[in-house]
Parts: sequence; structure tokens; C-alpha cells
Amino acid sequence: VSVLTCAVANQKPLKLDSRSLADKDERTKREDGVTEESPMRLRMEEFIREKQKEIVFALEQIDGKAFRLDEWQRPNGGGGLSCVLQDGSVFEKAGVNISVVYGTLPKAAIDKMRVNHKNLPDEEQLDFYALGLSMVLHPHNPMAPTVHLNCRYFETMKPDGTSQAWWFGGGSDLTPSYLFDEDAIHFHKTLKDACDKHDKDYYPRFKKWCDEYFCNKHRGEARGIGGIFFDDLDETVVDAENGFAFIKEVLNSFLPSYLPIIEKRKDMPFTPTEKEWQQIRRGRYVEFNLVHDRGTAFGLNVPGSRVESILISLPLTAQWRYMHEADPKSREQRLVEVLQNPKEWV
Amino acid sequence: VSVLTCAVANQKPLKLDSRSLADKDERTKREDGVTEESPMRLRMEEFIREKQKEIVFALEQIDGKAFRLDEWQRPNGGGGLSCVLQDGSVFEKAGVNISVVYGTLPKAAIDKMRVNHKNLPDEEQLDFYALGLSMVLHPHNPMAPTVHLNCRYFETMKPDGTSQAWWFGGGSDLTPSYLFDEDAIHFHKTLKDACDKHDKDYYPRFKKWCDEYFCNKHRGEARGIGGIFFDDLDETVVDAENGFAFIKEVLNSFLPSYLPIIEKRKDMPFTPTEKEWQQIRRGRYVEFNLVHDRGTAFGLNVPGSRVESILISLPLTAQWRYMHEADPKSREQRLVEVLQNPKEWV
Repeated sequence: VSVLTCAVANQKPLKLDSRSLADKDERTKREDGVTEESPMRLRMEEFIREKQKEIVFALEQIDGKAFRLDEWQRPNGGGGLSCVLQDGSVFEKAGVNISVVYGTLPKAAIDKMRVNHKNLPDEEQLDFYALGLSMVLHPHNPMAPTVHLNCRYFETMKPDGTSQAWWFGGGSDLTPSYLFDEDAIHFHKTLKDACDKHDKDYYPRFKKWCDEYFCNKHRGEARGIGGIFFDDLDETVVDAENGFAFIKEVLNSFLPSYLPIIEKRKDMPFTPTEKEWQQIRRGRYVEFNLVHDRGTAFGLNVPGSRVESILISLPLTAQWRYMHEADPKSREQRLVEVLQNPKEWV
Repeated sequence: VSVLTCAVANQKPLKLDSRSLADKDERTKREDGVTEESPMRLRMEEFIREKQKEIVFALEQIDGKAFRLDEWQRPNGGGGLSCVLQDGSVFEKAGVNISVVYGTLPKAAIDKMRVNHKNLPDEEQLDFYALGLSMVLHPHNPMAPTVHLNCRYFETMKPDGTSQAWWFGGGSDLTPSYLFDEDAIHFHKTLKDACDKHDKDYYPRFKKWCDEYFCNKHRGEARGIGGIFFDDLDETVVDAENGFAFIKEVLNSFLPSYLPIIEKRKDMPFTPTEKEWQQIRRGRYVEFNLVHDRGTAFGLNVPGSRVESILISLPLTAQWRYMHEADPKSREQRLVEVLQNPKEWV
């Protein structure tokens, strides 16, 4: 694997030489299976793989077309499974991906992480493990919103492979081209219910975080109408068991949050002008993902990364139309106003 | 003007409070006109405005449709003129823009610049002036290449407005979806001739710089088939008069480098499959401009920047098709090979 010299987001390239830890985990999974006694990274991985299957199956029922599955290995440990549906009858492009990275953090990266994770030891380098499920669905119909979900688990490991520092992150957010208040309310309500079962503070904090994170700062507008975003959920916030339980809740709430919306919108009539507006909004989606998204920058910077899996988040088609402006009082303008002033939906 | 807090490319936002210098320059231009005795920034600006008119006129002759002109002011000094042709008969989107920034560099930015410009004084802040002409033409026909040209002048100023440190930068490069060797040779030959009149070392150095700079490092392929790229042409390389003469040469060679190519390709027949390949290549163009291009990152980070002028470089339409691969031995595959292994054309 050639180490990328490209300074995406000014990160130092990460070294990958954790082959032995990856092998050890593979052996454990094969010989002992995964139980409640297993390391969290194996439990999390097992759960995520199960949910990926379930979500892909549900989306295939809606679309009628099968996903293409690409399993891939990372030369130095880890790999992933990319499930992609392109040119479907409902989805222009839908990606449901899992990826696993075993690697080594250099000192500079450790120092940066220690700002948010005080218990990271002050070492020259640390083995790490990163696992994520990432999903973006772009429907054809401009009345049907794009949806994104991510959940991830990160840990550093001692030389014997036991966990040292760890944290969970994730979230889910909705990006309509045409705003239906009932959809926005349903989506947020489902997420709020999931959050409230764990901590009443989660939803208000994570909704705010979402609006702040998914922001095209150069345009002064959010990418979408919100949802939840959270990161750095470590033992200062929640213990590992409850953190895992929360991640499960979020992932379990995905289909209930989105299926009723896509069912209602996928066959609505639309005009060529409405399709064009969707294409322009998709251009903004591309801008966020390539200019601002930390996950994309991290992915493109990891040596041996699978670029096609990372950029599956980009829509199949997008437009950039100079000085395109929505008519005052139009539905398009209402969306822009909400993107400029994020709204509380529940 | 609200100062963007967005850390595009990890640059610190630039402060803008050079109103008085901008006013002084305006007064000079109005009262004394621009002569060979004027400060370089005024001579450069005058020349660039003249070339913008000439290029816009020539492109209108080819397209048959008029450019839209948007003149704009920067609240604290400077502004620009954006000339845009969209949905033309030859060009899907063509932007020929000039922008002028008067601003103040903070210490961190000065320290960074001093690496390449030893004579920058070690001050807490410095007034600066930046001028650029930037042009990107995206034709409809997939046989006709996209072309980009940029030339820029940067200087820091003493409190009395006289020049302190200065440098020129610029270049021009070609991005075909279908490669015609004769076009690549003509384009590079024209640029080489322009370079050779000034310094025989320029062309080989600037061609190499171009291949290295316009590189989608995350994909291991160049954006296009090259041209020239240069930066930091200061008094260690060339005196101001000769630097200015070189910039004039580059800009004067633009129409001769591109017009014969667009004339030959604009009406060629093409298939829907060829149009789709063009759309995919346009997606890569977007990736470079949003992920790697320093000029775009700088622009989006300048307070009060005009986002629509900066992002005029993006094509009207683009596609991202998962795992799209060219057929072996196809024309598409030959292009990819040249992008992976940049070629000497003259």
C-alpha cells in the first residue's frame, strides 16, 4: 500500500501495521464466536453487519432491484462490505457500507485526540481500530428526501489487544429538496424517541450538533433539515454497555424513521423544474461532503482506502447553475430559509 | 462582513481593513490613469481587465450567445467582474472572472508565506493585495476539452501603499474527456513557445508543476493532461518587469492555444455513452476543485468572498457512477492511462 502524501484536511497519513491484531480478532471470531464477553469491537462489528443485511433487504423490497455487494480486504488488516444499488426504480443511488480499519496512530494524531479524550496515554504511537456503518440514499423523485446515517466505534488498544480508550459516534439526518413538514416531524420524532430512552439530554444536544456539523459554512446554509449527530461518546459520557445500547437504538430506529417517508414520496408527480431544483440541491450535497465533511477527508487520507466506497455518498447526478435563486414565496425558497435558520421539529 | 469561522484548508481567516489603500488606488486610477510608472498592481489590473474583454468577445463569437456580466464590490476594498455564459450553444458553462482583494494578513499567514518569500518582514500583520483572472470553459460536446487558465499577482504593501514583497503565479491546463493527441500537442506547443521566449527552463519546470498540482491524489490520477502551472515568481526568479511580460505572454497565448481546438471539436458527433463518460470526468473535475485546489479553498475562506464566482469553475452537470470502469483498450481507458502517467506532449 502506498502511503498517500495528499494532505487532505491537513491530517498526517496514518500508518498501518496492525496486521497481527487483525489476525488475532479474526481467529477469535472464528474459534470462539462473539458473545457478551467478547471485546466491544467484535460485538459492535457483529451487530453492524446484521443491521446492514436487514437494511439492505428492506430497501430491496421498496426498490425492486437488488443491491450489488462488494466485499473487500485492506492489505494490513480490516476491510469492508459495500452494498450499492444504482439506477434502481426508487433510488438513483443507495450505498450501505461497512468498513473496518486496523492501524497505528502517530504521535501528532494522538495529541490531537487527547484534547477530547484525556485518558489517551502519551505514547509515540498507538494501535487503533475504527469501525463504521455509513449509509446514504438518494431517491430519484425530487419529493423524496436524501437520508444519511452513520455509526462508528473507535478504540485504541494495548499491545495485548485489550481496549484502552474508546468512543462511539454517529447520527442520522434528512436532506429534502422539497420540504414536507410532516416528514420532518416524523423523522425527528423517531430519533427523539430513540434518544429519550437513554438520556433526555441527548436529543436537544445532538440535534443542535447536527445543525452545526452539516453546515455549508461557505454558503451560510445547512446541508439538510437536521436529525442527530454525536461524537466522542466515551466513558465520561456513558459506560460502554449503555453506549452500545444507544448505538443499537439509533440504528434500529433508522427504518422506522425513513420507510414511511419514502413510501409516501417515491411515486409523487413532479415537473422538470422540480427535478432541476433537486439537482442543484445535490450539488450542495457534494459541496458539503467534499469541502467540509471530516469523515470523507479521514477516509480519503487513510492509506489503502477504497475511494469508491467513500464517495458512494455522492449523488449519481448533480448540477451547479450560476446564480440560481429560488422565487420569493416559492416552496424552494421556504426550504432555503429553513436551511439558513435550522428549525426545531419536535 | 461576517468573518467565516469555517476552517477550509485550515487557513486562518484573513482580516480585511485596507479600505484606505483600496480608496487610494481608486483615486490614482481616476486622477492619473495607469502608466508604466504606476505601481505594478495597477498595471496588472489594467492589463487583465483588457484581456478579459478580449477573451469574452472571442468566446461570444464562437458560441453565439452573450455572456452575463456581474460587477461586484467587496465591502472593505476590491471586488470583481464575473462574466458567465451558461447553456450556450457551444459552452455548457463558461466563466471568465476577475477579482481583487485588499486585506490584512495575520502573523500566522505571514510566517507561512515567508518559507517561500524570505524578504517578507517579520511583522504582526501586513496589508496585502491579490488580483486574479480565473477562467474555466466547459463545452457541451464530449469531444471538446475543458480548459482552465489562471493568472494572479500578489503583493504586500508598506503603510504608504508602496510594494514590499510581490509575486506572480498562473498557468493553463487542458482536461479532455476524449484525447486527441493533435490537440494536446497544439495546446502544449503554444504554451512552450510562450515560455521559451522568456526562459528555456520555464516550460519543463512548469509542465511538471502542472502535472503534480492538478492531481486527484486520492485516485492517483491527474485532473487533465497538463499544461503549465507556476507560483511564487518573485525577484529571486525574475524581476518585476520581466515577470509582468511573462504573464502577458501566457495570457496572450490563451486564445491561440484553445480556439483551434474548440473550433475543430465543438460540432463533432457523439453517442449518449460518450456524453456519460464526459459527465463522469466532470465529477472528477469537481473532486479536484473541492478537495485539493488551494485557490478554491483560499477563495471560500476570504471574508466577503463571492461564492458563486469562485464555484463558477464547477461544471453545470456531473455524475458519480459507482465503480465505473473504462473498457480495456477503449479510448476512455487510454485517457485514464495518460492521466495516471502524465505524458510529455512536445
